[in-house]
Amino acid sequence: MPASMPLNHIPPEIRCALDYETLAPQFIAAPTLAYIAGGSGHDQTVAANRAAYARWAITPRLLRDVSAGHTAITLAGIAMAHPLMLGPVAFHNLVHPGGEHETVRGAAALDCPIIASTQSSCTLEQLARSAGPQRWFQMYLQPQRADTLDLLRRAEAAGYSAIVLTLDAPIQVASLRTLAAQFQLPAHCVPVNLAGYTPAQESAVAPGASRILQGVMAAAPNWDELRWLLTQTRLPVWAKGVMHGDDALALQAAGVAGIIVSNHGGRSLDGAPATLDVLPAIRAAVGKDLPIVFDGGVRSGADVFKALALGANAVAIGRLQLYALAVAGALGVAHMLKLLREELEICMALAGCAHIDHIRATALFHQREHHVNHD
Amino acid sequence: MPASMPLNHIPPEIRCALDYETLAPQFIAAPTLAYIAGGSGHDQTVAANRAAYARWAITPRLLRDVSAGHTAITLAGIAMAHPLMLGPVAFHNLVHPGGEHETVRGAAALDCPIIASTQSSCTLEQLARSAGPQRWFQMYLQPQRADTLDLLRRAEAAGYSAIVLTLDAPIQVASLRTLAAQFQLPAHCVPVNLAGYTPAQESAVAPGASRILQGVMAAAPNWDELRWLLTQTRLPVWAKGVMHGDDALALQAAGVAGIIVSNHGGRSLDGAPATLDVLPAIRAAVGKDLPIVFDGGVRSGADVFKALALGANAVAIGRLQLYALAVAGALGVAHMLKLLREELEICMALAGCAHIDHIRATALFHQREHHVNHD
Amino acid sequence: MPASMPLNHIPPEIRCALDYETLAPQFIAAPTLAYIAGGSGHDQTVAANRAAYARWAITPRLLRDVSAGHTAITLAGIAMAHPLMLGPVAFHNLVHPGGEHETVRGAAALDCPIIASTQSSCTLEQLARSAGPQRWFQMYLQPQRADTLDLLRRAEAAGYSAIVLTLDAPIQVASLRTLAAQFQLPAHCVPVNLAGYTPAQESAVAPGASRILQGVMAAAPNWDELRWLLTQTRLPVWAKGVMHGDDALALQAAGVAGIIVSNHGGRSLDGAPATLDVLPAIRAAVGKDLPIVFDGGVRSGADVFKALALGANAVAIGRLQLYALAVAGALGVAHMLKLLREELEICMALAGCAHIDHIRATALFHQREHHVNHD
Amino acid sequence: MPASMPLNHIPPEIRCALDYETLAPQFIAAPTLAYIAGGSGHDQTVAANRAAYARWAITPRLLRDVSAGHTAITLAGIAMAHPLMLGPVAFHNLVHPGGEHETVRGAAALDCPIIASTQSSCTLEQLARSAGPQRWFQMYLQPQRADTLDLLRRAEAAGYSAIVLTLDAPIQVASLRTLAAQFQLPAHCVPVNLAGYTPAQESAVAPGASRILQGVMAAAPNWDELRWLLTQTRLPVWAKGVMHGDDALALQAAGVAGIIVSNHGGRSLDGAPATLDVLPAIRAAVGKDLPIVFDGGVRSGADVFKALALGANAVAIGRLQLYALAVAGALGVAHMLKLLREELEICMALAGCAHIDHIRATALFHQREHHVNHD
Repeated sequence: MPASMPLNHIPPEIRCALDYETLAPQFIAAPTLAYIAGGSGHDQTVAANRAAYARWAITPRLLRDVSAGHTAITLAGIAMAHPLMLGPVAFHNLVHPGGEHETVRGAAALDCPIIASTQSSCTLEQLARSAGPQRWFQMYLQPQRADTLDLLRRAEAAGYSAIVLTLDAPIQVASLRTLAAQFQLPAHCVPVNLAGYTPAQESAVAPGASRILQGVMAAAPNWDELRWLLTQTRLPVWAKGVMHGDDALALQAAGVAGIIVSNHGGRSLDGAPATLDVLPAIRAAVGKDLPIVFDGGVRSGADVFKALALGANAVAIGRLQLYALAVAGALGVAHMLKLLREELEICMALAGCAHIDHIRATALFHQREHHVNHD
Repeated sequence: MPASMPLNHIPPEIRCALDYETLAPQFIAAPTLAYIAGGSGHDQTVAANRAAYARWAITPRLLRDVSAGHTAITLAGIAMAHPLMLGPVAFHNLVHPGGEHETVRGAAALDCPIIASTQSSCTLEQLARSAGPQRWFQMYLQPQRADTLDLLRRAEAAGYSAIVLTLDAPIQVASLRTLAAQFQLPAHCVPVNLAGYTPAQESAVAPGASRILQGVMAAAPNWDELRWLLTQTRLPVWAKGVMHGDDALALQAAGVAGIIVSNHGGRSLDGAPATLDVLPAIRAAVGKDLPIVFDGGVRSGADVFKALALGANAVAIGRLQLYALAVAGALGVAHMLKLLREELEICMALAGCAHIDHIRATALFHQREHHVNHD
Repeated sequence: MPASMPLNHIPPEIRCALDYETLAPQFIAAPTLAYIAGGSGHDQTVAANRAAYARWAITPRLLRDVSAGHTAITLAGIAMAHPLMLGPVAFHNLVHPGGEHETVRGAAALDCPIIASTQSSCTLEQLARSAGPQRWFQMYLQPQRADTLDLLRRAEAAGYSAIVLTLDAPIQVASLRTLAAQFQLPAHCVPVNLAGYTPAQESAVAPGASRILQGVMAAAPNWDELRWLLTQTRLPVWAKGVMHGDDALALQAAGVAGIIVSNHGGRSLDGAPATLDVLPAIRAAVGKDLPIVFDGGVRSGADVFKALALGANAVAIGRLQLYALAVAGALGVAHMLKLLREELEICMALAGCAHIDHIRATALFHQREHHVNHD
Repeated sequence: MPASMPLNHIPPEIRCALDYETLAPQFIAAPTLAYIAGGSGHDQTVAANRAAYARWAITPRLLRDVSAGHTAITLAGIAMAHPLMLGPVAFHNLVHPGGEHETVRGAAALDCPIIASTQSSCTLEQLARSAGPQRWFQMYLQPQRADTLDLLRRAEAAGYSAIVLTLDAPIQVASLRTLAAQFQLPAHCVPVNLAGYTPAQESAVAPGASRILQGVMAAAPNWDELRWLLTQTRLPVWAKGVMHGDDALALQAAGVAGIIVSNHGGRSLDGAPATLDVLPAIRAAVGKDLPIVFDGGVRSGADVFKALALGANAVAIGRLQLYALAVAGALGVAHMLKLLREELEICMALAGCAHIDHIRATALFHQREHHVNHD
């Protein structure tokens, strides 16, 4: 069955945000979908990210006044209408001819900040012209510092208001499912942002050296590179890919503006824990002040609620934006965000949380808390 | 396969109360059944309510004398033959042309108190004439206080002996399963009790305001409205929908006669905990004196026994009454209640509990209590 | 497919004791098998009994000398070649024309004590003539004390060396699976031991009284009856059906010779815990001295090992004896016992336990004990 | 479908080490595969060994410098390029005509030490000529001490550098799956190493003695035999089959060079715990100094990482070497080892462990550690 072209309306089958994932196979060719949906290796972490939400229930509370309620937050000094962001995802033109232009127009309609990926289908300058005012730029450290600086200056010039430095994916083993689907990146998917830069090359490793440890990892970021970068820009820099409290503390000490708890959507280390499972310990480690954005398997407003309750300040949407984009372009993206927001508001209303900072761990019920006092 | 008409006898396939659910698909059209069986969203809480019972076993005890045993209780001063009630369920004429008249006749035959729903197929006055002496009236706060008062006065005049105020469902997201089944409420299902009252209207929300928090929730009850209501009647008022000990304590302090631990049968917040899972903490919070009625997935006398052991004083039957009604009308309802009561008595006899107040948490065995002393 | 007649040889498919259960459907008609395999209600406790063994692993130990090892035990002063018994099971002629005569000959060949059921296909006197010297007699208290005494005197006269009083099954709700299979007890299955005795009759209950609590339970044994019985015989009396430490303690104080931890094979209270799950607490309650026989789902020598490790002194085999009987008569029963004993010996050898009393809880590994010291 | 002959190239379907197991059914006849893959009895321990890995996740760490990283270790004074070994597996000619010669050439290409099995298809002297310099010899104590000594002297003479004494399999009950597959050891699979030795014979047991405890176990090793053996060679002696900390301590006291935590791949006591589950307690018992090699279900570099984190110094590969051998001979074995090593290096790189001794329990996340501080 060939994939359908994106619709110019919302199909009636879409009743909740998750339905965009359910409908996606009608709009995305199977190999491409395998590439998008897959993670790394046996997709264990992809599955773990999703499974973690079911360990928590949300406790309904009664009679609380939410008439002055809203979802607005301030994240590292920035006012946001709601705690949702679009996370960085590569090559939106894989699923829609309009690519990122469609996505960011949908986001802007819902006042949703976006984090543009370095690996976008269009240049960061082009993307900026379509995007709303709240746009961040995700980047990897380039093999040459000059190229890193050029990318940074271009992002500053294009009005991006924060830098997200991805730290967690120096190695990306493909999903076996994706390999089995024989997905090939189409010719029109080119990282145009990096045109002219020195590409990352696998180092020729000395005899007896490791293709991984001395080869692939030669290009991996380290603390020195991070500290250097932090001296090169006045934009706030966020560190993406944090999965341990000690790393969060060290990043905080190094001066990042905030962290993004992420396992790269399960696309880096297959067998990494679910992000929701490590979130509470990370929040406990850093205390209340360090801003935390969270991603990993979010498909509903209830998922957003749980991540906020367990320590996140905001939540980034990954694959779901591509599914919505594939189904109905900018309209789909906007509608998906609206559904997520309303689903979150329903959870807030029924859990008696008028504001985002009322959403705490005490609002959740762990599914194994079956205590009873034996009398 | 078209749904069969209700029988005028008990079919031989009915060997336990749960069998009424098993047989229901033969007597209720699929879309209607989806509406009745479904909860909210992905029916997670519907499933959780049922799954919770399996976490507990009932420990058999030996040689105890139950010859003077009985199931009678006193609930908030009212003598009851057994700790079973029929909970409020809307529009019984969905499954039986006789509607609530059949149901309450079946209940009266087993001395089972009923909680009439505001959303009944007939008026509360008509229902009262068919019902036995033990009848409570469930209501929602109406948009206009005058209408609320009118409803209250009518219930008082019709001889209802208690008011059950439903607090937990200011928002009811439909079950996706129900939506997929394309169920439509038939034309003859009309909330006749509310004829002439100002209907609940979604407030027109100001620009930038939330359709949920400022719109739908504008009609939600709050503490002021509850306190007002408590001043307007001498009937005992029960609060339905309690899922947290702090809410139970606050309601107790406000002066309710008792609480009903309920998550609206999973029809309000999808992802709420199972009622059985939160019951022990609620009982622990309020101590021994506040009467607690419990509902949520009860399908057998063993389920009733477990709820009583974990803190409930009585148990309300929800969907199962409609299934019994659909299968065999008043006779089915009466038989279902008789089966539940006998199943409860069998548990009592084998667990050595002659009276309902002998049923304590110590009578249960948690399925994960596999301790052993290593010598 | 009609059920095959019992073989006069061991079929090659039998490689372990459990295989008798696997092969049984070829030798027992489906409705009869449903009756034998079924428990009560939804067979929850039948399943729980089996599932409990998988929670424990057996830790292999090295280099221990078992050259003087053996399985012999002394149970309440009686020397036994191994800790296996055949528990009381009704009407062996359901699966073999030779009935109990075949079974007990098979048991005698393996020096296995048997507990004859009151509900045997032949009289206890006939059974005694076929049985080996180690035979106990299981009985229920009869409605008339005179009949109870007569049964007791007959058992004494026929050389039974212990009395097993079944306490746990005053109510036996049929398995729904068995009801669905429409099993009927054949005409030749008659409790010949009880011929001439006043049958148990359901008391006519007074208006308003309970069919269960005042009806069925009127015939239930109580502490007075037990104490009376203990004064009427010099034979040791064992109490069967213990599931709680407090009952075990009270029985010990009343003077029983030992207890049988049993939930009647899941045929009494559906939803009772697994016997293996309650065994450790019962052993902890009574200390080391009270002899405990255990039953409930034993199908392998490893199951026997686990029950011994968790507190049992000996283990009674229930359904498996009927399966072996159906497959190959006395030969099958003997072979099944030989397999169980050798499977037990293999566990002993590999766990380094030369004698039965070396089998302790420390020989087991709980499948959830995944501790690690974080350094 | 007849099994294919081994390939002389790596098939493209092999993308990770585990894929050799996935592809094996194309290259190994079903009965032979059942024999290799099966364990003992119902294969419970085979399944447990595999399932244990999923209880642990690996926590990604950021920005650590692994540029000087490597997998080299020193094991009991021996320098190894990586912590992988090939464990002893019988009769490699079951799956490849070249037998062990192919296997050890593959291992040598990856500098992987091998543990030659006594039950090899060729003599230990022949095997030594094909093998690389790091070769250990696995043996069982023979019925005659003279034969044991002869085997030992031959291993010393052939340049084996360590002796692995298998202690855990005095009894090997066949897998029921293997029996059902009717596998027969082919005529060309003969333990040529033992030609001329007195074979192990089941002792004729005295009347009343046990075929297991006095028969099969008569040939089992005991502490005296172990202590004697330790006096007969200057080679380091490793004890294979340790599953309990007390046994590890006693072996350490007796003077073994190290231990191999193993349950014989689930081929000895069916129902034994997973090796990964008992490893932490064994390491805790013996402290840091005693070298531990680990086996049991290792199929990936992540599995290796987890075993190292929980206390192992090195990891032995069992069945997977036969699968790789069957698919592509020496080349397959070498490739499988290369994949395992790179998978391990990827875990090290992403977990921020530059060296093997950085891999500690703190690098893992237990899948049930879902703590949250309720505020």
